Amino acid sequence: MRDALVAAAFQLFLERGYEQTTVDDIVKTAGVGRRSFFRYFPSKEDVVFPDHEQALAQMQAFLAASADADDPLVRVCEATRQVMRMYADNPTFSVQRYRLTREVNGLRTYELSVVWRYEKTLGDYLRTRFADRRDGTLRANVVAAAVVAAHNHVLRSWLRSGGKGDPLAEVDRALQFVRETWDPAGSGAETPADRADEDVVVVITRRNTPMWRVVREMESTLGEG
Amino acid sequence: MRDALVAAAFQLFLERGYEQTTVDDIVKTAGVGRRSFFRYFPSKEDVVFPDHEQALAQMQAFLAASADADDPLVRVCEATRQVMRMYADNPTFSVQRYRLTREVNGLRTYELSVVWRYEKTLGDYLRTRFADRRDGTLRANVVAAAVVAAHNHVLRSWLRSGGKGDPLAEVDRALQFVRETWDPAGSGAETPADRADEDVVVVITRRNTPMWRVVREMESTLGEG
Repeated sequence: MRDALVAAAFQLFLERGYEQTTVDDIVKTAGVGRRSFFRYFPSKEDVVFPDHEQALAQMQAFLAASADADDPLVRVCEATRQVMRMYADNPTFSVQRYRLTREVNGLRTYELSVVWRYEKTLGDYLRTRFADRRDGTLRANVVAAAVVAAHNHVLRSWLRSGGKGDPLAEVDRALQFVRETWDPAGSGAETPADRADEDVVVVITRRNTPMWRVVREMESTLGEG
Repeated sequence: MRDALVAAAFQLFLERGYEQTTVDDIVKTAGVGRRSFFRYFPSKEDVVFPDHEQALAQMQAFLAASADADDPLVRVCEATRQVMRMYADNPTFSVQRYRLTREVNGLRTYELSVVWRYEKTLGDYLRTRFADRRDGTLRANVVAAAVVAAHNHVLRSWLRSGGKGDPLAEVDRALQFVRETWDPAGSGAETPADRADEDVVVVITRRNTPMWRVVREMESTLGEG
């Protein structure tokens, strides 16, 4: 019934436009009563985003099930990947909805509020995980925003292309960029701050520096010069 | 006249609530005609955010006036600081509006769309500045989101406190956190991603690695081995 209402709604939105379609039109096309519609969707706007409530609940459950040993950055990236999978599983529907949200101003702001709820969910989780860090709350909010921005960067470009290519591979690459920004240790490199804490030596040099000069620099850093 | 309309509107919003106040009530209290209201504000929602259009235009002008030699990260932080200054210049109004947006769902989504326009303005500027970088668009979007998140982190906590403390000092600290994330050069170091783009060689090694092994590693990286 729920799926039939969504299908009927999108059929009409595409045929005559979102604004020109009423809830009465939708229930008539779906062959159900008005009350059935409102049992599933509080408003006409909600039928455009039938999957986000479940995806948000899934994200919250996934993050709540995290162990203390889990890398929080890896966790939020995995949680965000699941949202992309929801879009990727239904390319036709995703692209149709995208075109609709471009045309109808009210749907775009609705979408912004959905995006904000994902960001808040990720931020809430990161805040508890970063609670003992200096600037933990700030860091949690900034990282959550960065993760969402990376996801939306890939999502928008995939939707704009009409659903071509592999958005999951792309989002992995974009999330990797975010992970490397804050957790380069996980990707084989390290941040200056990380390195300062460990017994590791870093040499940064221009490519055309003569080797003897590099060695001298390293020896003096190592205290062997 | 514009200021009188804003003052009348907020007086009524506080007295009887946002939903219970009509545009007719506002113009009557301000002692002007209905048409005057709509000359300044397309809708009742817009009178709640009378300053953002000007602030957005100011941000666009500020960024458009950037020189190529300007550090783009410094520029977007300065542009964002100006938005905080707008709030800080009017603490009473800012706090009143904040309480209103907490209560009225429609105003919260309106606010999200304003925030999105700031983020897009910063992102547009960064995209042109990062155009020649690998992952330039992704980087621009992620950095813009991080800058906005840092700003909003400070703004929300200042508004929640009822406008206590120095939000400009706080936002400087939060923006510094973002700058250090992507531009540690400004603080004396570099990120792995920065280094990868430049003609620079980085060697990271444990302190107890023998020097011959370090030299061999460097030679092979340099293509001299």
